[in-house]
Order: sequence, then structure tokens, then C-alpha cells
Amino acid sequence: MKSNRREFLKLTGVAGLGLASIGPFSGCNTVQTQAKDESLSDIRRAVGKSYTQSFNMSGYRAPKIDQVRVGFIGVGNRGSAAVERMSYLNGVSINGICDVRPEQAEGAKKRIKSTGHNPTLYSESTESWKQMCDSDDYDLIYICTPWELHAPMALYAMENGKHVAVEIPAATTVDDCWRLVETSEKTKKHCVILENCCYDFFELLTLNMVRQGFFGELIHAEGAYIHDILHSIFSKDKRYDLWRLKENAARNGNLYPTHGLGPVAQAMDINRGDRMDYLVSMASNDFMMNPLAKELASEDSSYKEYVDKPFRGNMNTSIIKTSKGRTIMLQHDVTSPRPYSRIHLLSGTKATARKYPLPGKIATGHERWFNEEEMMSVEEQYTPSIVKKIGDLAKQVGGHGGMDFMMDWRLIDCLRNGLPVDMDVYDAAAWSVIGPLTEWSVANRSGAIDIPDFTGGSWKTNKPVDISLSEGANTGVRL
Amino acid sequence: MKSNRREFLKLTGVAGLGLASIGPFSGCNTVQTQAKDESLSDIRRAVGKSYTQSFNMSGYRAPKIDQVRVGFIGVGNRGSAAVERMSYLNGVSINGICDVRPEQAEGAKKRIKSTGHNPTLYSESTESWKQMCDSDDYDLIYICTPWELHAPMALYAMENGKHVAVEIPAATTVDDCWRLVETSEKTKKHCVILENCCYDFFELLTLNMVRQGFFGELIHAEGAYIHDILHSIFSKDKRYDLWRLKENAARNGNLYPTHGLGPVAQAMDINRGDRMDYLVSMASNDFMMNPLAKELASEDSSYKEYVDKPFRGNMNTSIIKTSKGRTIMLQHDVTSPRPYSRIHLLSGTKATARKYPLPGKIATGHERWFNEEEMMSVEEQYTPSIVKKIGDLAKQVGGHGGMDFMMDWRLIDCLRNGLPVDMDVYDAAAWSVIGPLTEWSVANRSGAIDIPDFTGGSWKTNKPVDISLSEGANTGVRL
Repeated sequence: MKSNRREFLKLTGVAGLGLASIGPFSGCNTVQTQAKDESLSDIRRAVGKSYTQSFNMSGYRAPKIDQVRVGFIGVGNRGSAAVERMSYLNGVSINGICDVRPEQAEGAKKRIKSTGHNPTLYSESTESWKQMCDSDDYDLIYICTPWELHAPMALYAMENGKHVAVEIPAATTVDDCWRLVETSEKTKKHCVILENCCYDFFELLTLNMVRQGFFGELIHAEGAYIHDILHSIFSKDKRYDLWRLKENAARNGNLYPTHGLGPVAQAMDINRGDRMDYLVSMASNDFMMNPLAKELASEDSSYKEYVDKPFRGNMNTSIIKTSKGRTIMLQHDVTSPRPYSRIHLLSGTKATARKYPLPGKIATGHERWFNEEEMMSVEEQYTPSIVKKIGDLAKQVGGHGGMDFMMDWRLIDCLRNGLPVDMDVYDAAAWSVIGPLTEWSVANRSGAIDIPDFTGGSWKTNKPVDISLSEGANTGVRL
Repeated sequence: MKSNRREFLKLTGVAGLGLASIGPFSGCNTVQTQAKDESLSDIRRAVGKSYTQSFNMSGYRAPKIDQVRVGFIGVGNRGSAAVERMSYLNGVSINGICDVRPEQAEGAKKRIKSTGHNPTLYSESTESWKQMCDSDDYDLIYICTPWELHAPMALYAMENGKHVAVEIPAATTVDDCWRLVETSEKTKKHCVILENCCYDFFELLTLNMVRQGFFGELIHAEGAYIHDILHSIFSKDKRYDLWRLKENAARNGNLYPTHGLGPVAQAMDINRGDRMDYLVSMASNDFMMNPLAKELASEDSSYKEYVDKPFRGNMNTSIIKTSKGRTIMLQHDVTSPRPYSRIHLLSGTKATARKYPLPGKIATGHERWFNEEEMMSVEEQYTPSIVKKIGDLAKQVGGHGGMDFMMDWRLIDCLRNGLPVDMDVYDAAAWSVIGPLTEWSVANRSGAIDIPDFTGGSWKTNKPVDISLSEGANTGVRL
């Protein structure tokens, strides 16, 4: 296993972040990922690209798939839970599981052994995931690998005729964001970003309230990923080859923007009536990671290579301006001792909502936040259809309180009924591109950088996400 | 009265924001204020100024003043409450009150008629405040006029041998911030900024905890002025000649930064161990003020001149980097329907505090915020001396819950005992300069702008604010 793992990482570039990662995908002539260094220096070209859609994937109704045949890549961590969640859905056939570590693939298969699913396992080599993508046994490839592998795998899967669901961020370079868009349009395959926080209960409630006009016009929003995972970043047990430590030791920006951004982008109709125009980003220095690297290195020499690496600044704060003159403040801090927060603030002309610090709060004026009774009344009036239909079941299944299951259910229901997906390739690209753009801004004294319009102008006419369940919603659940 | 008022405003430039306001102070050859337009275009020169102190006012011990003779300028709003608060302090003699509206001056005098103070009133002309500053009957001039008058009045008072306490912001242009510094150093008179929020209870508690090492090293902090005063900005009753509407209709930036910045700047030892290096700022569009201007204009034609003015964007978000690589996020929104917040977040290597949304919270890890018992224990251990000594009395006096009185008590106690003041001219300049600098950044696509080092390098050795009450603290209170 050990040499296998090393070879995999070396080949895919995960072991040497910042080096070219084109090699392993040479078997597929359309897939080329760009090295991070190149992307950062060349970013002005990539963001300034003039783009005309070859086909508009926003609102696209793909042919219905009665039984969605799913293959998973990467089940070492959250992928394994996704396999189990999917097994509860009618109209799903789990046909394959791929992981470079055979015991992980087998472990995921065991979780669903009583369900009748009998997935093929792919662990022979570091290229086995391509076998899965090449096969005709799949409609959807569900990707939960380390960040750097998301884009190349998604591109390869679409090129080979598969819809794709890809973990966050969907890509780590501007060019890869463009490639996802171009490839999705060319192949007419969905590239769905698995941003589970768009399906959390307070986020869905406030999204529905926005749609019903409760907030008036939105002026400003905030999102964050403030989650102290410092020790798990340094844990060899929890992070396969310390891949996440390597990301944090080499890139300085908001590396994980979508948990905070996704829900507020939907509320602001980003890519569907408005778009993100430019951003600035600032990072503090690192006060947490290098001290821990030194401490660990004094006990375990294998950590010595991390001492004095150019660690990401602990707190990253970014501000985004939209074409309609609204603002989004985004933060990222995964290493400071702070209680968890995604903020989720919506500030409108008529009302305000703020989720964190919990509990979620809503106000229609400056005097005070709603009391418990008013909150209950709001929930009664504005709970969206998806929560009414699937919320209780989702809570039973779990997965971050139920949101993961609502996300999976909705994804499958859209594919089965040929509905537009909630989070399409333009969202995947626009939400993920914040990572490399904030890196550029941080590296350039917080300079403003354009955010590409991945929709090629169609944001002006694209329809908002339909969360009314006016169609479909016929996918059964068996628990 | 009406023509008097108009003349005053015209002369001082308040009536014509953006026009030169040099005229009325020509009587004093050292006082020249710069027009806002000029300041904005010329700002790079002003921020890049190379500066050597003529005298270090940080830590300066002025000669003791047993009985502090105070004169107030501007008692139409909060100045009048300040007069009353000061009347409770032993060692204070309220010798004069100036306001361009005689009834306001008389009203303030009435508030203290039972105290034995017998102030001279100055309301003859728009220049009467100069008479007060020229007189030998004063040690301290306490300035609560509209923003644009703060700097010229403070400068004139110092030039005429008076210590100055000036409301926030102390200045509205970069050049005026420089002038305050140069004049304070030259005259060896204190220029104290009246940032009352530095004396609020949770802010003082957390400042003391910082000093005791509770937070470890601070990495990031946040402050804000989120206060929905939309209707009062448009109220002719509440705002003298609608001066605050004029500011909001002509300047686009964080116009009122110090409530949020002051307390976190003290916690981070800004100007006393660290300094603010540069900032970026972004504003949303205006979605609130112009609609209200239109609504009011349809009923009252005197509001027509405000329709379609270049109103300040409702939400301003700014990020500041310090020389030590720490960050401060600042926000300003006085027009959206949001519950009040100054945020007051301190994020350190060992702990986190956050005041808003109330109640104030503290955590030493990511798992959770302290419970009530832990909060009580923290308060018991870390309540600073000033709160122990004067907190209960301050709550009785009131004034934003007591903080205003603690501020005034401390100011007088420092002057009486010849102690360094808590908020000196460098703080007044550095906290206030955020206003014009954010205007520049907003006007330049959120470009980064240097923050001047008003201390001329002495920030490296200046001592932190002493909140231990190790000296003085002998000023009595009679209620």
C-alpha cells in the first residue's frame, strides 16, 4: 500500500503541490490541469478571458434517467457516508466504488451490504478511477477525493459521458474552472458542486424568504468557514498523506470558500440575475500552524519538512462586489480556537437574518431580533417545500444534521426527472474560483481582481434556482 | 436665528460640504483645514508623508491641574449630556458653554443649575467659540459640534493653550489628522478623542483579559458601527441643518469608524507596539437613502435637493493589515434595518471574544462559548480596576449605560494627576483617518491605501494604555 499511495500522490501532483499535475491524465487528450504557480502568475489572462457559451447549462433539462447508476471516487472520508446515504434512495443503483486504498473501498461497500447494491470495486492502480469513468455502467460519477483531483476527475468523467457531482471546491485554479464550464457545455453533462450547506435548514428557510420578498432587496451578505480543524490538518490518521496540510502550507487565500458563499450566492441570484464582479482579499500572518509544526517535529521527525513552510495566514477576509452593486464579505479560518461559524448573514432593505453564533436570528428592524414565537411563526410560513417533504427523513439519516441527505435526494430527483440542477457548472466555477483569486489578491497587497463571468453574459437572463418542488419530487426513500 | 444658522454653516463649510472651509479660521494663522475634494485627490501625498516627531505625546505627562476648568462647544445633542456628566465630578469647574443657538446653550446650563457651576454662555456669533478658546478661563475645551468643525476647533484650542477633548471622528481629512498631531506635539496639549466605546464594560473586560494574556497573541479583530439611524439622519428636528444627511449624501466610505475600531485598536496596542499599515474598503450601492429622499421630497419640497445625490453605499466593509501581520475587519452601516452591532470580536491564539449579537461571548476553544457560570468566573477574575472603582456609579449616571461617564471620569482624573491620557492624539488621528482613507479606496475600486504612521516610528517603543489605575484614581464623584 505504502508505495502505491506514494506513487498515486506523486503521479497526481498531490504529493508535490505547486508542481505540474498534467502527467497522469495524459491518457485523455482533453484533460489538462494547470499548475498552481502558473495559474497565479498568469491569472490576469485567465480572469480576463472573453467567453461565449457554446450551450447554456443553466436551466438545462438533461434526458431523464429513471435509475441513476452511480460510481464513487474517494471514500476515505466523507465519500463513504455519501455511499450509505445514496443507498436509501429509490431510483439509485450504486454500481461502483473507487479508492486507491482497497480497504477503504471495501469498507464503503460493507456499509451498504444489506441494501441489495453490489458495487464493483476499483483499487488496482492509481488510474482505476478512469476505468470507472470509461465504463458504460454509470450515469453519475460522485467525486470525494482531495481537492487537487476534483477538476481533472470531473473533466474526465464528463468527457466520457457521465454527469458529475464533485466535492468542494470543484477546482483550485482559474483555468480549471474554465475547463469545467467548457466541458460541461460541450458534453451537455451536469457538473454539480456538492455544496451541502445550501441544503441546511436555516439557509433554505432564508432562501425561501428571499424569494417571497421578505428581505426586500438584498444589499449585503456574509458567509464564512470558521472551523478549528488545526489538529486534524496535522493528523496522519485523519488526512490521507496530510494532503490538507500540504494545501495549507503552500497556498495563502480562502481555500474553502463555498460553505459560506454557496448559500448567500443562491440568495443573491448570483449567475441568475446578478454576478460577482471583483474581489479583494487580505490574510493575517500565520500564528498557529508553524508553532504546531515545530512542536510536532520535535517529537516526530517526519513533520520536519513542514517547519517554516509558507503557511496560509490564519484569518482570511475577502470582500466581493456584484454587478448590481451589492457586497459579500467572506471569511476563512480553520486554525484559530473559535466556535464554528458560517455566519450566513443576509442584509436587505426590509429585513436581516444571521445564523451564527447560533441560534439563527431574523429581524425586520433595528430594535431587536425576533423572539421565539415570531421565529416559529416565520418557520411555519416560510419553510420551503423540500424541507416539508424530506426534512424529517433527512434528520433521521443525518449527515451534518440532515443537509447532506437533502442535497443527495435533490440531486438524484433532478437527474431522474430531467430537471435543471440547483448548483450547476457556473456555480461550481464561480464559487470555487474564489480560492485562486483570493490567493492572487493576498499575494498582491489585497489588490482588486476581476471575477470571471463564467456564464458568458447569460446571468442576465438565467432563471433563479427553483426550490418550490413544482416538478418531480417523486424519488422515494427507504430507511 | 435662521440667518444666523445659515451664516454659520456657510462660513464653516458645513452647509457646502466639499467646498473649502478655510475662511472662518483665518483669524488663526496656523489653522487651515483642507477641502474634502482636494484631500481625496491628493491623498497619496498625505499618506506618504515622511514624519519625524517634534515631541512624543504618547505617554506624555502634562502638568497636573487640580481644578480642571472646562468649556464646551456644541451642546445641541450629546454635548448637553456631557455637561451634566462633568458636573458630577469633583475637581471640575464648568466655566463656559458655547453653541450657535442660544437656547441650546441655555438648556445645557439649566441641566446643571443646582450644582454650583455657573458657566459663561457664548452664542453671540458664529465665531464665539474662538472667544472661549482665547480666554484664560479654561484648561480643557470639550468639542461636540458637527464632524467638519472638530479639527478646526481642536486646532485653534490647542494653539491657544488648551487641552482638547473632541468628539468622533476627530477629523475628516488626512491633512487635518496630520495637523492635529503636529499641533498637539508643538503645543504639548492633549488632543483626546472622545471614543466612549473604549469604556464600555465588555470592551474593558476583554482589554484587561488581553493584557493578562488570556487570548494569547491576537491574530484578528473586528469592529463595526451598525446602527439604523436612517430616519434620524433625515430628521430636521434631530440633526442641526441636516448636517449628517449632507455627510452621507457626499462622502462614500466608513464615515464613523471609531466606535468599532477604538476598542480593538487598544486591544491590539495600535500605536503602542503595532500600527495599522494599509487598508482596502468596499461599499455597496445605496438602496435606502435615495428612496427615502424621494419619498420625503414628494411631501416636503425642501428635501428635493437630496434626490439623486451621490449617497454613501449602505454597507461599507474595510480590512486593515497591521505591521505585525494581524488584520482588522471594520464595517459601517447606519441605514439598513439591522439590530445594533459594534461586533467587537477578538480572535487570538488561545481564545476568542465576541460582543454582538448580545450577550457578549468568550471561548477558549472551538467546541463552545462559555456558559453563564464560566462568564461570571471570568468577570470576577478580569474586571479591570476602573470598572471596580467607578462602574457602579457610572451605571447610575448613565450615558450609554455608563461608558460615557467612565470616559469623562478617566479624562479628568488623568488631567488632574498629570497622567498620560488613554486616547492620545495619535489615536485620534489613526482612528479618524480611516474615514477619508476608506473614501479613497471605495472611489478607487477598493485599492489598497497606506495608513500614515502618525507616531513617526515611536509606535515601536510607546507603552500600552495603562488601565490598571496604578496612579491617580483620586477624583471624587458627587451624585
